[in-house]
Amino acid sequence: MLKPLGDRIVIELVEAEEKTASGIVLPDSAKEKPQQGKVIAVGSGRVTEHGERIAMEVAEGNIIVFSKYSGTELKYEGKEYLILRENDVLAIVG
Amino acid sequence: MLKPLGDRIVIELVEAEEKTASGIVLPDSAKEKPQQGKVIAVGSGRVTEHGERIAMEVAEGNIIVFSKYSGTELKYEGKEYLILRENDVLAIVG
Amino acid sequence: MLKPLGDRIVIELVEAEEKTASGIVLPDSAKEKPQQGKVIAVGSGRVTEHGERIAMEVAEGNIIVFSKYSGTELKYEGKEYLILRENDVLAIVG
Amino acid sequence: MLKPLGDRIVIELVEAEEKTASGIVLPDSAKEKPQQGKVIAVGSGRVTEHGERIAMEVAEGNIIVFSKYSGTELKYEGKEYLILRENDVLAIVG
Amino acid sequence: MLKPLGDRIVIELVEAEEKTASGIVLPDSAKEKPQQGKVIAVGSGRVTEHGERIAMEVAEGNIIVFSKYSGTELKYEGKEYLILRENDVLAIVG
Amino acid sequence: MLKPLGDRIVIELVEAEEKTASGIVLPDSAKEKPQQGKVIAVGSGRVTEHGERIAMEVAEGNIIVFSKYSGTELKYEGKEYLILRENDVLAIVG
Amino acid sequence: MLKPLGDRIVIELVEAEEKTASGIVLPDSAKEKPQQGKVIAVGSGRVTEHGERIAMEVAEGNIIVFSKYSGTELKYEGKEYLILRENDVLAIVG
Repeated sequence: MLKPLGDRIVIELVEAEEKTASGIVLPDSAKEKPQQGKVIAVGSGRVTEHGERIAMEVAEGNIIVFSKYSGTELKYEGKEYLILRENDVLAIVG
Repeated sequence: MLKPLGDRIVIELVEAEEKTASGIVLPDSAKEKPQQGKVIAVGSGRVTEHGERIAMEVAEGNIIVFSKYSGTELKYEGKEYLILRENDVLAIVG
Repeated sequence: MLKPLGDRIVIELVEAEEKTASGIVLPDSAKEKPQQGKVIAVGSGRVTEHGERIAMEVAEGNIIVFSKYSGTELKYEGKEYLILRENDVLAIVG
Repeated sequence: MLKPLGDRIVIELVEAEEKTASGIVLPDSAKEKPQQGKVIAVGSGRVTEHGERIAMEVAEGNIIVFSKYSGTELKYEGKEYLILRENDVLAIVG
Repeated sequence: MLKPLGDRIVIELVEAEEKTASGIVLPDSAKEKPQQGKVIAVGSGRVTEHGERIAMEVAEGNIIVFSKYSGTELKYEGKEYLILRENDVLAIVG
Repeated sequence: MLKPLGDRIVIELVEAEEKTASGIVLPDSAKEKPQQGKVIAVGSGRVTEHGERIAMEVAEGNIIVFSKYSGTELKYEGKEYLILRENDVLAIVG
Repeated sequence: MLKPLGDRIVIELVEAEEKTASGIVLPDSAKEKPQQGKVIAVGSGRVTEHGERIAMEVAEGNIIVFSKYSGTELKYEGKEYLILRENDVLAIVG
C-alpha cells in the first residue's frame, strides 16, 4: 500500500486512447494537455499555519483530470502510479 | 459532468468573431488579449489558511472575460472546454 | 455592463495630449510613464485569507493615474477599456 | 490634488546640488545612491490581510531619503512629482 | 545519534535494485525518479508563525518514497544517510 | 538627524584596518565578507500584518557585524553613513 | 563576545579530517556536502508576524551539521567563526 503525505494523491493513469466511460478525449493542441487518472489513495490533507488539516476534495475512486507533466511516476508491485498534489488536479469527472 | 476543484471554473469559449449578444469585440493589439467564455461549472472555492472556504464570485451561466493563455484546454464528450482559476477571470459581462 | 472581479477596476483611458481638466501632463522620460484614466466600474474588493472583503479606495468616476503597461485592454460595445488591479493605481487626481 | 493610494506617497525632488538646509550631500559612489524629497501627499496606509489599515510613518512636509530608481515620475499642473511606496523611504531627515 | 531539526528526517537509502519487501521498483523513465529509504530519525516538526509545532506524519522505521535529488547526504559512524524535509517525502510504503 | 523607517538602522562604518577595541578582524577570503559598524539611529521596528510593531534587537551605540553589500550609503552633514535593515545585521559585538 | 541576531547562531568549524568524537566523516561526493561545527552562541529566536519569539532548537555547545556554503565567515579576537541561520542547520549530532 502507498500512503501519500499531506495533500498528495496516488493515481493510476487512464489512457486517453482507450476512450473511457467518462468520455474524455484529450485535444490535440500545442497547449499543455491535461490527462486523466483514477484515484487510488489520498493523503490526509495539508496542515495550515494554524495547525488545521484541510480536508481533501478528491476521494479514492474518483476519475480526475490533471495537468500533464505534474507529479512523480513510481512503480509499485508491478504497476505504474503517479503521485500528484491535489492542487494539480483540475477537475473531477463524473 | 466536470466538477472543477477549489477556485477553478470550466468554461466554453465564446468566439470573438461571432459578435456575441454581450457585444464584446477584442481589440487588435500587441498587448495580451482577453477572451470571453460562458461558465459551465464552478468549483466550491479555495480554502484559506484558516480552513475557510471563500465563496466564488463567478456563477454558472455567466459570460466572463479572461486573459488569453490562461487555463487548460480539455475535450469532454465531444466538446471543448477550458479550465481556469477564478483569479484569471477579469470581469463578468452582462 | 462590465463587472470587474475582486480588486479589479475598469477604466476609460484619458489621453495625455488632451490636457485634461485635472491638468496632468505626462513627463517625457526614460522611466516607466504613468497614464491616467476615468474609473467606469469597480470590483467588490479582494477577499483576504480571513474571508474578509477589503473595501476599494477607488470609486466610479475617479480620475486615476496608473503605471503604463499594467492592465488588460478590451473593447466592449464599440469602446475601448482597460482592466487594472487597484494595486496598479498610483493616485487619484482631483 | 494628488491622493496617493495605500502606502504610497507623493514627493517633490530636492536636488542634491542645492545643498539643502538639512545638509544632505549624496556620496559619489558606485553603490545605488539615495535621493531626497519633500513629502507633498501621503496615502491612508496599506490594509493588512486582517483588514486593518497600517498608519503611515511619513507625514506631509517631511524631508525623506529614498533609494534612487524607486517610484514613478509624473507631472501635475506643471510640476514634477514622484510617487513612492513608504517602503522605499529609507529615513526621515530633520 | 543524529537529531534532525524542524521538519527534517534522516533516512538510510534502500537500493531499488535489491527489490525490497515492500516491492517498489523504480521506473526507467526520463522523469525525475523517486527513491526509497528507511526513516532513522525524525525532527520534532516545523513551528508555524503562531508558534505551534506541527506533528510529523512520518515516523521512525517507515519506508518512504522521496523525490530524487532532494536532501543532503552525510556519512555518520561509517554509514551513509540522507537528510530530507518531510515535504520531500511523497508517500509512506507499507 | 536621520530617523530610519521601520526596521532600518543608520550606522557609521568601523574600518576593519583600525583593529577596533572589540577585536574583529575580517577574514581574507573569497566568501562574502561581513563588515562592522556603530549604530547611530534605530527605526521604531517593522509593523506586522496584525498591526503590531516588533521591537528592535539592535540599539543605538551597538557595534554590529553586517553582510557586505547590504544597505545604502549616504552622506549627511559631511559624514558617511549606511542605512541597513535589522535583518542584514548578523551579530552584535561586545 | 558575539551575540547573533534573531534565529542566527555562531559556530566554530569542526574539521572533517580530524575525525571527531561524534564520528562524522563527510562523504566524497558531487552533491552539496554538509559540514559540522560547534555552537558558540545562539540568537534569541526569530519573531513571528504575531510578535511571538520562536525558541531555538539549537543550544550552545551542540555539535551540528549544516549545508556547505551557508553562512558568513568572520574572524573575532583571532579565531574564525561562521554565522548561520538555524534553518541552515540540518541536524544536531550526539
